[in-house]
Amino acid sequence: MRPLTKLLDAIGGPNTAAAAEAQRHLDTLTKPPRSLGRLEELAVRLAAVSGRPPRVSAPVIFTFAADHGVVAEGVSAYPQSVTAQMVENFLRGGAAVNVLARQAGARVIVADFGVATLLGAPAGLVSCRFGPGTRNMAQGSAMTREQATAAIEAGAALADGVIATGADLLGTGEMGIGNTTAASAITAAVTGADPDAVTGYGTGVGDEGRRRKVAVVRRALDVNRPDGADGLDVLAKVGGFEIAGLTGVMLAGAARRVPVAVDGFIAGAAALIAATLAPAARHALFAAHRSAEPGHAVALAHLGLAPYLDLDMRLGEGTGAALFVHLARAAAAIHGEMATFKSAGVDGPVP
Amino acid sequence: MRPLTKLLDAIGGPNTAAAAEAQRHLDTLTKPPRSLGRLEELAVRLAAVSGRPPRVSAPVIFTFAADHGVVAEGVSAYPQSVTAQMVENFLRGGAAVNVLARQAGARVIVADFGVATLLGAPAGLVSCRFGPGTRNMAQGSAMTREQATAAIEAGAALADGVIATGADLLGTGEMGIGNTTAASAITAAVTGADPDAVTGYGTGVGDEGRRRKVAVVRRALDVNRPDGADGLDVLAKVGGFEIAGLTGVMLAGAARRVPVAVDGFIAGAAALIAATLAPAARHALFAAHRSAEPGHAVALAHLGLAPYLDLDMRLGEGTGAALFVHLARAAAAIHGEMATFKSAGVDGPVP
Repeated sequence: MRPLTKLLDAIGGPNTAAAAEAQRHLDTLTKPPRSLGRLEELAVRLAAVSGRPPRVSAPVIFTFAADHGVVAEGVSAYPQSVTAQMVENFLRGGAAVNVLARQAGARVIVADFGVATLLGAPAGLVSCRFGPGTRNMAQGSAMTREQATAAIEAGAALADGVIATGADLLGTGEMGIGNTTAASAITAAVTGADPDAVTGYGTGVGDEGRRRKVAVVRRALDVNRPDGADGLDVLAKVGGFEIAGLTGVMLAGAARRVPVAVDGFIAGAAALIAATLAPAARHALFAAHRSAEPGHAVALAHLGLAPYLDLDMRLGEGTGAALFVHLARAAAAIHGEMATFKSAGVDGPVP
Repeated sequence: MRPLTKLLDAIGGPNTAAAAEAQRHLDTLTKPPRSLGRLEELAVRLAAVSGRPPRVSAPVIFTFAADHGVVAEGVSAYPQSVTAQMVENFLRGGAAVNVLARQAGARVIVADFGVATLLGAPAGLVSCRFGPGTRNMAQGSAMTREQATAAIEAGAALADGVIATGADLLGTGEMGIGNTTAASAITAAVTGADPDAVTGYGTGVGDEGRRRKVAVVRRALDVNRPDGADGLDVLAKVGGFEIAGLTGVMLAGAARRVPVAVDGFIAGAAALIAATLAPAARHALFAAHRSAEPGHAVALAHLGLAPYLDLDMRLGEGTGAALFVHLARAAAAIHGEMATFKSAGVDGPVP
């Protein structure tokens, strides 16, 4: 496992030569130049990360689960037991991310980063536990800085493992009752937005529930005073173990030059942390979609990422990342499989 | 082949009972209710068309090609020869729609509705020719009302054919140098929008070229005075053979209760004609994406259709419809494959 400092040192910027070469090739294909819009931009960005022609042959989606002490404040519509139950559902293949990943030909890796209820050792579950959920951030730090660092490193190690065996697109998803509250606190802390602007209905708490969430986020920020410029400080004080793990996946993808699809609001919060720790990592991050959670658009704007899909989704798990796999494959196929004007004998524009 | 009047008589509205049943089932699945947003709406709409649980197992994309006499006015960046050359490219599998349809597991059917250059009889090309391209709509009617009717019926017959052998999602695409000019004229005639608001750069004509296109569209409307409430009149006077064929596919899909993905701006113009002839057909139409052509958003607003993708694409051919296939499959898979709260033993919301 690489220490975080080494991981951050390994992160460089986009390969502009590979990007230019990809666009040059796209412009020779039998279509008006740039007429495939963001599909072409996506192909070029994939090339800029990997340094070679875009290819999506082995996508892997990480779905990390953990619990959140802040549920004691009544911030979720669902009981904490659902986190563990959903982990079992993931392992049986019955959750939305399983269905969408199967359809997209993506592997799903489920890891326990700190689910409250002990799960035994179900087959197929990766264990990276940092405790039985975080502590209640409304009363103090959610975790220690050392835990935050270790959880990032653990997520990065999982990503390094699949990259070593050929993964060429990483997806990031999560499950954790209470984690939209943590994501709202992270988003407010890093972007400077007011908690009210970045706190939504989560799993469906209603208007009164949302007001309570906003108050809890304000209290967590007041009690902890996270430094928005210090990603580790924010993550430790108001984050979550699964969020830390996803930050690690993003940083490892950037360091190993493998594109990473950022799922929704909670993965977006992990991306905010990643970009705070390593601003250069942003070029490796792809905003799969725009979540219906209001804080997500704020996070994406801060990151400078434009979402590829906007389907009013707010489920998490990696469901948006799974849908994005189709677009990434499509972009790579356009680059790799289309005929050129020359090869097809098609006339160019009228001079 | 069914006469158009019989086709129109066969078109009914959505199956609201099937839609309600689909939503009821979606609400039992292991996710917060409606948290998959438009993916759930899509599943429900698919059920409302077919009257059974959503299923996408045999999608077929129709790519219809024809030429346009209006190219004599210098409205396109590419020479007319490109229509026939691209038909050959489609048949060899090298065009964007081939690549994207392959990736989506969709069959592409290419039909010649009236390409100017004779193509011989290339293998795999369906022949539904109504002439060597339309006449120049800037000087008179593009075709006769009888031709418009017959081309609609021919498109419908092709759709009926694949539906009879199991197609459960139809896609609509096209190729025809000059056809964005026809689509602009149709969109202006049916929606009442000013030609300037619905005329874009097409294959890339630049600002001066676009001004010329706007003037040509104005002239075509002045010369022909199409009745925007009479779809056949609009189609005959300022339409195109391939556009008529796509209108037929849409009407046949609606009549046979098979969902139809509307591709981009030109397919959107065909949808405007279809909805004028049979307003009830709209429930069977799915706006695959929003094209970068400005007239497309005007057409979709008039049709009351919200696009599922918005990727700044403007290629046509059926490329947007091919990408939409993934979303339709995803929606059907969510409905068909996810676990329920009960089957997975997951707790519901806190009372």
